[in-house]
Amino acid sequence: MKTLTVDLADRSYPIFIGEDLLSQTDLLSPYVKGKQVMIVTNDTIAPLYLEQAKKLFSDVAEEGQVDTVVLPDGEQYKNLEHLNLIFDALLEKRHNRTTTLVALGGGVIGDMTGYAAASYQRGVDFIQIPTTLLSQVDSSVGGKTGVNHKLGKNMIGAFHQPNCVLIDVNSLSTLPDNELSAGIAEVVKYGLICDLPFFDWLESNMDKLVARDIASLIYSIETSCASKAKVVALDEREGGIRAVLNLGHTFGHAIETDQGYGNWLHGEAVAAGTIMAADLSMRLGWIDAADVDRIKSVFEKANLPVLCPKGMQSQRFKDLMAVDKKVLDGKLRLVLLQAMGHAITTSDFQLEQLDETLAALTYD
Amino acid sequence: MKTLTVDLADRSYPIFIGEDLLSQTDLLSPYVKGKQVMIVTNDTIAPLYLEQAKKLFSDVAEEGQVDTVVLPDGEQYKNLEHLNLIFDALLEKRHNRTTTLVALGGGVIGDMTGYAAASYQRGVDFIQIPTTLLSQVDSSVGGKTGVNHKLGKNMIGAFHQPNCVLIDVNSLSTLPDNELSAGIAEVVKYGLICDLPFFDWLESNMDKLVARDIASLIYSIETSCASKAKVVALDEREGGIRAVLNLGHTFGHAIETDQGYGNWLHGEAVAAGTIMAADLSMRLGWIDAADVDRIKSVFEKANLPVLCPKGMQSQRFKDLMAVDKKVLDGKLRLVLLQAMGHAITTSDFQLEQLDETLAALTYD
Repeated sequence: MKTLTVDLADRSYPIFIGEDLLSQTDLLSPYVKGKQVMIVTNDTIAPLYLEQAKKLFSDVAEEGQVDTVVLPDGEQYKNLEHLNLIFDALLEKRHNRTTTLVALGGGVIGDMTGYAAASYQRGVDFIQIPTTLLSQVDSSVGGKTGVNHKLGKNMIGAFHQPNCVLIDVNSLSTLPDNELSAGIAEVVKYGLICDLPFFDWLESNMDKLVARDIASLIYSIETSCASKAKVVALDEREGGIRAVLNLGHTFGHAIETDQGYGNWLHGEAVAAGTIMAADLSMRLGWIDAADVDRIKSVFEKANLPVLCPKGMQSQRFKDLMAVDKKVLDGKLRLVLLQAMGHAITTSDFQLEQLDETLAALTYD
Repeated sequence: MKTLTVDLADRSYPIFIGEDLLSQTDLLSPYVKGKQVMIVTNDTIAPLYLEQAKKLFSDVAEEGQVDTVVLPDGEQYKNLEHLNLIFDALLEKRHNRTTTLVALGGGVIGDMTGYAAASYQRGVDFIQIPTTLLSQVDSSVGGKTGVNHKLGKNMIGAFHQPNCVLIDVNSLSTLPDNELSAGIAEVVKYGLICDLPFFDWLESNMDKLVARDIASLIYSIETSCASKAKVVALDEREGGIRAVLNLGHTFGHAIETDQGYGNWLHGEAVAAGTIMAADLSMRLGWIDAADVDRIKSVFEKANLPVLCPKGMQSQRFKDLMAVDKKVLDGKLRLVLLQAMGHAITTSDFQLEQLDETLAALTYD
C-alpha cells in the first residue's frame, strides 16, 4: 500500500492507495471520531460494495450506528433536490455533529457527500472512498465539493477537506470501459500540466492501462494524486495555481452543459476540451502541431473523443463559457499549455485565435 | 457612529452602528471588491429600503452592476428551494467569483444570503445590513448561516463571515411591535449569559426600549454586539464557549418546530425557552426563584411570552430536543444559568429535574 499526504496544516490528510483496502479496519479507525457513520452511495455501486463497506464501518465504529443512503446513479441527480435526500437520512436517523459521512462511489457521490458534510449542522467529518478512476485521481482529493445548477456545473458548493481518502484499486474491476477511459483523461491531464515524464510514460503504457494492469493503474493513480496533492497544498481555495487543474475543463463544461449532464461523461468532455486548449496553445505558438497530435493520439488510444459533439456550434461554446467560473470581471481566462508539461491560466489570447480553434474543432 | 470589531485574524470585520448609515457611500466602499453586487431582500423590506440600498451600492460599485432578488418574507421560506432562487438570480445575471452579496433584511434574509454567499462558486463575499433588532444584535454577527430542514431548524448551513455589518437604527422605525419585542429577547439574553450590569440596566430601561428611544436602542445594540463579538472571537465555529449564546434556544427551537416555522417568532420562542432554562437552573440550586421572577418580569415588560404554547406537551419537547444540534453522543446538553449573568453548557442535570421544569411550564 502507498500513502501520500495532502499537506494543509491542521487540515492535512492521507491518501491510501492499494489492493483490498476495503477490508482493513485498522486503516480507517483513526479517522472516525464519533459513533455514527452515514454511508452515501448510488444504486450502481450499492449492489457491488455497500455490504463490504457497511461491515468495515461496523467494525470501525464499535457498537456504533452505521446508516446508508442510496442515491440514483448519474450526473443529472447532482443537484440540491437529491442533496436533500442525504439531509433527510441524517435527520431521520438523528445523526449529530460527531457523525462521519462516507462517500462510496464516483465523483458525483464524492462531490455531493462532501458538500452534505460541509453543510450538515454547518460541517461534519467525511471520508472519501472513490470507486471510479476519475474520482480516484481527481475529485476525491482536494476538498472541492458541490452540486450543479441548471445554469452551470458545480456552481453551488464548498471547500471541505476529507479526513482521509481510501483508494481500493480492486473497485476498478467492475468499472465500465467508458468510465475507465474517462478517468484516463484526467490522468493524462497531470502529465500535460506539470509532469512531462509521466506523459511520456503514458504514451508508452496506455495499452496496459486500458487493459487494467494493476501495477500500471496503481502507478498512474499514485503519480496523479501526488501532483494533485502538491497543487492543492499550494493553493487550497483556488486563488491561483490550482486553476491549472482545470485544463480542458472550461471547454469541457460547455460540452457537458450543452449535451445535458450525464450524456457525455466528464472525462470525455475534458478530453475533447483538452484538444481545444492544446489547439489554441498551438495557435499562440506555445506548442507545436506535432504536440497536439501526440495528445490526440494518447486520447485515441484510450478510446476518448478528440472532437466536439456534432451540432454544437462555435457561438454556443462562447455563450456557455461566459458563465464559467474562470471568468473574472468579464474577461475569459483559460488554462492553456505554455509548453508540454507546463500549464498556465491566462487571458492572453485574441478572440480571433479562439474563433480559429472553435472553427477548426466544431462542425459549424 | 460606533464601530466595533469582530476579531478573527484574517477574517476580522467591523460592525458599524448608527443613524442614517444607508446613505454613506464611504463607509462601504472598502468592502466591495468587484463590480457586481446582488442585493437579497424580502417583499416586506423591498418597498421600504431597497431603492435606498440600490442607490448606495450603485455609488459604491462605480460603473458596476447592481442586481436584486426579492424573496417572500417569512421563516417558512428559509429552505433549500428558496435558497435556489438566489442562485438562479446570480447565474441569470452572470455574477462571477468577485461578486458581493448583500443581505438587506432580518435574520432569515441574513442567514440565507450568507449561506448563498458561502456556497455560490464555493464562496463569495457578503455584507450584512440587518433591518430588525433581532438580526442586528444576533444573527448578523458571527458568520452562522444556513437554512431550515423540515426535520430541524438551521440544520443545513456554513460558517461564513461577512465583510462588514452595517446597522442603521433608522430601519427599526418601520419594525412591527412584536418583532421589536422578539429582538429584545435576544438583547436580554446577553445580560443573562455574560453581563449582569446590562441586565440591571435593561430592568430599569425597558420602557424606553419598548418606546424605541434611539439612544437606548443604540446602547442596547452596541452592548449586545460587543458581547457577541467577544464570544465569537473566542470560538468562531462553536466548539465550546460560543454555545452559551444559545441560552433558551434548545427549548425555543422545539417550540418553533412544534408550532411550524414562522408562527411563533424566534425571539418569542427564545423568551419562553429562556424561562424554561432559568427554571431548570433554579431546580439545580444555581439561581433563586426570585431571579426567575426577575427574568419573567423583564420579558413581560417587553410583551414577550413566558409560557409554552398551549397544547404542547412535555413529551413533545423531549422528542424534538433529541434532534437538536446540542445533542452530543446521545446526551442532551443545555445552556443553563450557573448564576445570573453567567451561562454554561452542561449535561449535568437529572432527567427528573428536566421533567419537573417541563411539568411546571407546559399545560400537560
